[in-house]
Amino acid sequence: MVEKTKAYIAGFLDGDGSIFLQLVRRKDYQLGYQIRASIVFFQKKKNDKILRWLKHKLRYGYLRNRKDGLSEYTIVGFRVVKGILNELEPYLLVKKYQAKLAIRIIDRIEKTPIVTTGFMLRIAKEVDKFGMLNNSKKRINDSKQLKKFFQSITFDPVSTEFLSIKKE
Amino acid sequence: MVEKTKAYIAGFLDGDGSIFLQLVRRKDYQLGYQIRASIVFFQKKKNDKILRWLKHKLRYGYLRNRKDGLSEYTIVGFRVVKGILNELEPYLLVKKYQAKLAIRIIDRIEKTPIVTTGFMLRIAKEVDKFGMLNNSKKRINDSKQLKKFFQSITFDPVSTEFLSIKKE
Repeated sequence: MVEKTKAYIAGFLDGDGSIFLQLVRRKDYQLGYQIRASIVFFQKKKNDKILRWLKHKLRYGYLRNRKDGLSEYTIVGFRVVKGILNELEPYLLVKKYQAKLAIRIIDRIEKTPIVTTGFMLRIAKEVDKFGMLNNSKKRINDSKQLKKFFQSITFDPVSTEFLSIKKE
Repeated sequence: MVEKTKAYIAGFLDGDGSIFLQLVRRKDYQLGYQIRASIVFFQKKKNDKILRWLKHKLRYGYLRNRKDGLSEYTIVGFRVVKGILNELEPYLLVKKYQAKLAIRIIDRIEKTPIVTTGFMLRIAKEVDKFGMLNNSKKRINDSKQLKKFFQSITFDPVSTEFLSIKKE
C-alpha cells in the first residue's frame, strides 16, 4: 500500500474501527480457550462501499450485514492482523499503543513452541490490559475466568506441562 | 499539510467526523436566519488528545467538553470550512460528495454580492439536500420553514429586493 492509503486507513481505524484481542471459549481447543485477534470496521449498510474498498486494500477478512442494519468488516487471525497493524502503526495516533501491544502479544504467541496453561494465563493477563484500553464494558472471559477454568479441570494452571493448543 | 497528514485526517473525518451545512435561526440577522457551515469531530474526553492534534493541524476552530462526557472539536465559518474541505476532498471516500456539495454551496454564497430572500431560499433548498446526505433525523429549520418565515414577515420571498445579510 502507498503511504497515503496507509495514512487514510489509519485515520479511519482511529476514528471508527476497533482492534480486538479476546479470550474466546472454544470447546474444541485443548486448553478450552482461544486467543482471538481481530480488526473490525462498522458502517451503516448504505455506506458499505468503504468497507469493500478497505477489504480490497487490506486483502483479508470478510464482510457481513448484521441484523441491526450495520455492515461489518472483520479481519481475524494472528498473522494477518499483525501484518496489517505493522503497516498502519506508524500512522496511527489514537490506537498506536493498542496496535503496538497487539503486535507484541501476537509475537509472543507466535514465538512460543508450545502453549502451556501457564503461558496461556500470562498471555490472558496481557489480553486483560488490552480490553481495558478498549473500554470494554464487561469482559466475560478474562484471565481470572481462565484461571478458574484451568483449576476446574485436570491440569494445574501453574505447571508448565506440555499441552499443545491449536493456533489460529 | 503534507499528504500523509491530509490522508489521515480525511480517513478520520470519514470514520468519525461530520460536515454540516445548517440553517440556523438568528434574530439578530436581517433575514432572520444564518447559513452555518461546520466540521465537527467527537471523542471521549479521555481521547481528546487527537482533537488537540487535529486543531494544531487544521489551525482553526475550538474544543469544548460536553456534559455527556464527550469532547467536541468544531470548526465554523465559510472560508475556513471551505479551505479545509478543499485540502481534504481528494483524500475523502465516504464524505467526498458531501465535501464537494458544501464547497459548491459556500462558493455560491461567497460569490453573491447581495443576499436576497430569493437567493436565501434557493440556498436553503441545497442545504436541505445536504441534510439528507447526513441522515439528519429531523431538520427543524429547512427551506419550507424558511419560506413560511419569509411569508410571515414583511417582504416577499420571491422578490429580489435588496436585503443585505451578515455573513459569517
